Order: sequence, then structure tokens, then C-alpha cells
Amino acid sequence: MQRTVERMLRTSPEPPFAPADPLSACIHACVECAQACTACADACVAEHDRALDACIRLNLDCADICAATSRILSRQLDPDPGVISMTLQVCAVACDACAYECTQHGAMHPHCDVCAAACRRCLDASRALLATTVQPRRFHHH
Amino acid sequence: MQRTVERMLRTSPEPPFAPADPLSACIHACVECAQACTACADACVAEHDRALDACIRLNLDCADICAATSRILSRQLDPDPGVISMTLQVCAVACDACAYECTQHGAMHPHCDVCAAACRRCLDASRALLATTVQPRRFHHH
Amino acid sequence: MQRTVERMLRTSPEPPFAPADPLSACIHACVECAQACTACADACVAEHDRALDACIRLNLDCADICAATSRILSRQLDPDPGVISMTLQVCAVACDACAYECTQHGAMHPHCDVCAAACRRCLDASRALLATTVQPRRFHHH
Amino acid sequence: MQRTVERMLRTSPEPPFAPADPLSACIHACVECAQACTACADACVAEHDRALDACIRLNLDCADICAATSRILSRQLDPDPGVISMTLQVCAVACDACAYECTQHGAMHPHCDVCAAACRRCLDASRALLATTVQPRRFHHH
Repeated sequence: MQRTVERMLRTSPEPPFAPADPLSACIHACVECAQACTACADACVAEHDRALDACIRLNLDCADICAATSRILSRQLDPDPGVISMTLQVCAVACDACAYECTQHGAMHPHCDVCAAACRRCLDASRALLATTVQPRRFHHH
Repeated sequence: MQRTVERMLRTSPEPPFAPADPLSACIHACVECAQACTACADACVAEHDRALDACIRLNLDCADICAATSRILSRQLDPDPGVISMTLQVCAVACDACAYECTQHGAMHPHCDVCAAACRRCLDASRALLATTVQPRRFHHH
Repeated sequence: MQRTVERMLRTSPEPPFAPADPLSACIHACVECAQACTACADACVAEHDRALDACIRLNLDCADICAATSRILSRQLDPDPGVISMTLQVCAVACDACAYECTQHGAMHPHCDVCAAACRRCLDASRALLATTVQPRRFHHH
Repeated sequence: MQRTVERMLRTSPEPPFAPADPLSACIHACVECAQACTACADACVAEHDRALDACIRLNLDCADICAATSRILSRQLDPDPGVISMTLQVCAVACDACAYECTQHGAMHPHCDVCAAACRRCLDASRALLATTVQPRRFHHH
């Protein structure tokens, strides 16, 4: 799948809004993390263990945020630097929180272990991309 | 639709993680904004006007962010304060940027005017909810 | 929110691909149902009752399908009749299944009762829109 | 990413609802296709070519459907056969239509060529999974 991400970047009439390697790596990490979190939430529900409530919740939130992030990063036309920056930051926060929570249950529940690894890869990829791109942005005044 | 949002909050076994009125108002504003932005992107493509490129882009990004935000706010079980706070902040940034861009085209394209109003309502609702809830959160150390 | 849906339809440069009243009603019903299902899944997890496993699963699936349907119906430019028709059919099937399952738990869990009503409204709105629009479509031969 | 999909399937407390190989292949093909379609819609907007209107529209619809399909297939707990079957069918119809449309522009726009290939892989994967699983399902009578 990463080859498809890279090819889509290379064939766009717009140049990538950030260096192509960390950008394609982050898109790939986001879609992988979103899928792992969706599957981990389902597996955690199936465990019937109250100790996994926070894990289910974070999995679902992290899946939603990573899916939105992967879409936003897939667009090269006229990016808004403030939106990109904040999106990468919330992605990093969600992946960090979900990786932390999943790690608590990784020894007992191997799906949490697999998911935590995907979250950590996405956290690292988001931070790496953030480091190449962004400047803070102020609110517009209407 | 807002009545359904309120009823779902009232019937959850979990108390709302924030005061119910600004929370249900923000959920409602997010789903409204996501729909308006999706429709505005489509209408802008149909206008065949290069001046709307940035508007299409922001509409699509804002739709993705507001849709994710509406889902995250709809969950009351074990919320992570840092994830909630950052989600509301990226929602506010995206709505602010999209409202600003749509406003530039509102006189010529009435769909941009309708969309800008939805974005402003969502910006206000996000800020109002953010004011009731959140404290910053640090990264976990793995 | 339904007024915003209607205004976006009226201000698009493209005429609505189906009669405006059942179209806007179905978009509205889909976003309402997606939100109710997202909240009901969360509430069902919080109940810690194995009898709700199928309900959680259907809530999550139905939320994903209704969210995708609401986006697809929000676009008026060059609709593909086969995609629209199949989308409305899967929306109806998911809402029907989720309404049925939630109804089994409605007496004990009022969130399931509220959610079942939203699913039934969306089922009815999908069928009503399907009746106005669609013809089957064959697979293309590549 | 496919290894993560496979690991999540293997570590779930629930057995996969369909044979693991075509199931993981279809999940992977759906996330790849959703990403390619999102990027292709953006690239097509940037081409400023009216002949791509239908392609933009199908890309956006196909991205929404494949994203929803990837989530639904990622859940193993208590699947509803009718929902699964209809979801795979709408996924196949959307991928087929989008592959066909993108192919018309593939010679001139290489991003359409890359996207058409991803759509065809997802079409094939959906049909292959559909062949292993499903029986039609009737509407419930409330």
C-alpha cells in the first residue's frame, strides 16, 4: 500500500506540501493505525473485561482521528498550514494516549500489543512530519 | 436532530463528560458543519472557478475534522481530556479557516455563504465547549 | 440542521439529483442516525452486558454506513445511479438490522429505544428516496 | 500494513467471520483504494478540467464507501450477514464505476491510472470475499 501512496503523490499535478518521504510514511502510518484501532476496539469489546473500557474508547477516538488525518494529508492542493499542523498534533496526542493505554494490556491481550505498535509508529510519523512542516497559525478575525 | 442528540446524552449510563447543553450544541453544530462543507465542496467543484480551489480543499478537510469531532464528542465513556481538548482545538481552527475562505466567495456563491454560517456556528460551539472542559495534557513517556 | 441541508441543496449550481424533499429528509435522517448509533455503541459498552454485543457491532456498522450515505447524498454533481441505488440499499439494510436489534433492548436500555427510532426514521427515508430515483446498474466490463 | 491487518485478525478473541486470507486482503485493498481515491479527487480538482467532474465525484463516493467497508470488515464480533453482504456489494459497485471512469483518463492523467488499478484490486478483493461468505438477507418485520 505504501507504494500506492507514493505513486499518488508523484503523479499529482501539485507538488507534495511537505517532503515526500515523511509525508507518504505518515499517510501510511495513519491508515494502518486507524485500521488497527478499529479492530482493537472490536476485540476489546469481545473480551468482556471492564478494565478495557478506556482502551475501547481511545481506540475508537484514535481510529476517527487517524482516518481524518490520512485524508487531509492525502490532499496536496492549497493546504492550510494551521489546519495541517493542528491535525498532526491531535493525531500525535491520540496515538500517544492510545499507545499508552494499549500497552497496559499488551501482556494479557496480544491485540492491544499489535495496536500499541501501530499507534507508536503513527505517533513517530506524525512528529517527524510535523518537524518538517509547520508554523503556528492565528485565528482569523471575522 | 438536536433532540435526538440530547436524548442520547440523557439516556447514556455515563454522565456527559461536559455540561450537557454546550456538549449537545457542539455535537449538533459539528454534524451540521460536516454536511454543509461536504455539499459546499461539491458545489464549488461544479462552479469550475479556479478561485475556489482553496475553498474546495478547506471544505473537504473541515468536513473530515468535524465528522471525527462529532463522533468523539458523542462518546461519554472514559474520555481522555487531552484528546478531547486537542480535537476541539483542531475543529475550531478548521472551522475558522473554512469560514474565512467561504466568506470571500459568499457574495458570488450563496452556497459558500450558507457554509460559512455553519462553520461559524461550529467554531463558536467548539470554543464554548472548550471553555467548559479542558486542561492541557502532556505526552506520555513510554 | 435540516434547514441548512435544504439551503445547501437550493444554492448548489447543480439541480438535486432526486426530488429535493425526500433527498434532504434522507440526508438529515442519515446524519441523525449516524450520531445516535455512535452514542448508542458507547452507551452499550458502558452497560457491561454481553447481551448487547450484537447491538454494539450493529451500531458501529450502521454509523459508518449512514455517515458515508449522508456524504454521498450531499453531492449533486454527476451522480452514478448504480452507486446511489446500492448505497441507499445498504443504508436501509443496516438501519433495519440495527433498529431490530436495538428494539430487543429498548425496554431495558432507553438509549437503545432512542437509537431504534432514529434507525427506523432513516430506514423509511432511505426507502422513500430509493422509490423516487433508481434503476439497477450492471457491472462495467473492463 | 497487510501484516498488521493479519496480526489483528489472528489476535482477536473472535475467529474471523470469513476465511482469513481473502478477508485481510479485502481490508487491505479497501484502505488502499480509499486513500488512492481521496488523493485522485484532489489531483483531479487541481487539473482544472471539466472532463474530470464525474471522476472527482466517483473518487469521493468510492473513498467514503471503501473507508466504511474497511471498518466494517475489521470487526469480527457478531457480524450481520446481510449488512456484510450488501456492504461488499456496494463496495464492488463503487470500485467498478470508479475504475471505469478513471480508466477513461488514465492515458492523460497518470494519477487516474494509479487510482484505477487500486479500484480494480479492491473490486476483485470484494468479489473474492463475497464469494466466500454470504447469503442474502430479508428485511425484518417490525
